[in-house]
Amino acid sequence: MAPLRWGFMGSGKINNDFATAIDTFSKNEHKKVAVAARKKASAEAFAKKFDFEKSYDSYESLALDADIDIVYIGTVNPNHYELCVLCIENGKHVLCEKPLTLRLEHTQKLIKLAEEKGKFFQEAVWSRFFPIYERVRQELKAGSLGEINLVTAMFGFNDQQTARLMRKDLGGSSLMDIGGYTIQFALQVYGPEMPQKVHAVAIKNVEGIDMSVAITLQWKGGQIAQLTSSFLAKLDSSAQIWGQSGSLEVHEPFWCPEEMTLKGKTEKHPLPMVKHDLEFRNGQGMVYEVQEVKRCIDNGLTESPHFTHKETLIIAQIADEVKKQIGLSFEEIYSGDKEKWKESV
Amino acid sequence: MAPLRWGFMGSGKINNDFATAIDTFSKNEHKKVAVAARKKASAEAFAKKFDFEKSYDSYESLALDADIDIVYIGTVNPNHYELCVLCIENGKHVLCEKPLTLRLEHTQKLIKLAEEKGKFFQEAVWSRFFPIYERVRQELKAGSLGEINLVTAMFGFNDQQTARLMRKDLGGSSLMDIGGYTIQFALQVYGPEMPQKVHAVAIKNVEGIDMSVAITLQWKGGQIAQLTSSFLAKLDSSAQIWGQSGSLEVHEPFWCPEEMTLKGKTEKHPLPMVKHDLEFRNGQGMVYEVQEVKRCIDNGLTESPHFTHKETLIIAQIADEVKKQIGLSFEEIYSGDKEKWKESV
Repeated sequence: MAPLRWGFMGSGKINNDFATAIDTFSKNEHKKVAVAARKKASAEAFAKKFDFEKSYDSYESLALDADIDIVYIGTVNPNHYELCVLCIENGKHVLCEKPLTLRLEHTQKLIKLAEEKGKFFQEAVWSRFFPIYERVRQELKAGSLGEINLVTAMFGFNDQQTARLMRKDLGGSSLMDIGGYTIQFALQVYGPEMPQKVHAVAIKNVEGIDMSVAITLQWKGGQIAQLTSSFLAKLDSSAQIWGQSGSLEVHEPFWCPEEMTLKGKTEKHPLPMVKHDLEFRNGQGMVYEVQEVKRCIDNGLTESPHFTHKETLIIAQIADEVKKQIGLSFEEIYSGDKEKWKESV
Repeated sequence: MAPLRWGFMGSGKINNDFATAIDTFSKNEHKKVAVAARKKASAEAFAKKFDFEKSYDSYESLALDADIDIVYIGTVNPNHYELCVLCIENGKHVLCEKPLTLRLEHTQKLIKLAEEKGKFFQEAVWSRFFPIYERVRQELKAGSLGEINLVTAMFGFNDQQTARLMRKDLGGSSLMDIGGYTIQFALQVYGPEMPQKVHAVAIKNVEGIDMSVAITLQWKGGQIAQLTSSFLAKLDSSAQIWGQSGSLEVHEPFWCPEEMTLKGKTEKHPLPMVKHDLEFRNGQGMVYEVQEVKRCIDNGLTESPHFTHKETLIIAQIADEVKKQIGLSFEEIYSGDKEKWKESV
């Protein structure tokens, strides 16, 4: 099988960790072709550090590069939609960081476009490809927990400073940044169906961005999920499945885990070693996502069975309902002078 | 100070544990005068086991006994209201098991009546008198956790068999039986104010009784509580306070605890030894409630400052709103043939 040829959009922290993950594979499997960033110097430095063949100061140039099979998009949230369109329309496979977009309508359009074009397309919910999530799926399939009616998950840290989390023009919001991890956990258990009830309350900052959000979901069979995300306090960021025959806990950090406890017995699945310093906790765990993307593309799949387009869509639908209930909208950053938000990339 | 002279209504499991708690004190402090139950044999057996002076097969007779200062009511839920009225109107102090009543209107009437009569009156939320709850109050007063915006608590076990939990005519419901413990925990942190928002979803049995209920509360300052109670699965029944400067966890069983962890440091407060077998987990912890009741009465207080009438009322108001949202009502057991439900006492 030919190596998968990668292009990167963005040269920030998340791109650092994703390139580090790719670096654990041989060049016969994954090839780092080009990186694009708004600033030429940033792109060049990144290309040098991670041994990319080329660098661009234009996303368009990267999208047109015929040597690239798949583009990894790791820019700030408000850019995701336009960059995904650019890549898909130029015939690239795409792996785009979460949240895929800030608007339900954009997510719907992207999925439709990707399916029309028949390219591999995925929101980078890396959690799903960790060995522990595979174990969770095994146990759910085996039914070892009995009937499950409650799922809980919390994700919280204390940070009211980081611009990309706090500012509306950068797509900040605890819901959009980390809340999606709690929602995907519930969907992993109950399956990709829209809940019947969505209840949300939030604590917002002066810009109207949610610093904390507490969400209750209930599906038509009665199943409940209680989810919380917060930038206001360090929470025990683990996730639980409470079955009638026992419980399963994915330990903190549940979104990129190394440990779980099933019916009182703890299992460890250590992550691989990597060559570079990481920016995010367990960032090396992106290796599993890299592997899965290649497996899918090699097999002609346009989505991973472990995190489907349908799930991306349901997360966006739930987030849309939550946003309505807590009075949060990103519409204003998509009207008027678009250069305003592009500056912050 | 004269000994406090106790009468008991009911001779079931909870009465067993409460009598056991009283038995840890000297007869110069607490005196067991009489017990009343619907069946003469039950009352006699209970009186013999715990060395009560008298037994009655009539609640009225006990309420009229001039040798009694305070009545402990431990019957099933639907009787609480009438028995409280009976005792208060006959000039007794009253300690009544939770839930105080099944209807907001009843709780409002009881508190009004007790305040008019000037007798000590308390819903038996024993949790509040444990040494660990005193420690929680100390830390909250000291402000050591910083600003607090999230409180979480879960209480769950797997039992779909026990009649008093499952049956509407016995006042069953996870909300009424154990949900109150989660609500009182949030009020301990945020203070006795009605939240601005109450959101609830439930899973109900064929009778329409909630087997699980998930509640989100939000106060006007933004503070959130996420609470869950369930008869469908064994949950980690602990409670957490998440502050900006650190967290405090009251370990399972948080409603009658021996351990807490404050900013990573675990404290133990073991419970006293008792003479009889217990029916409920840490039932001996009722000793703290017994102590507090005597302290209040000796000092002429009509309510404990650690669990006030106002808190009882707010719990009832929250429960009332939850019941409305989940479509649960106990009204039918108060109309028509009242003997029907009395039978089950």
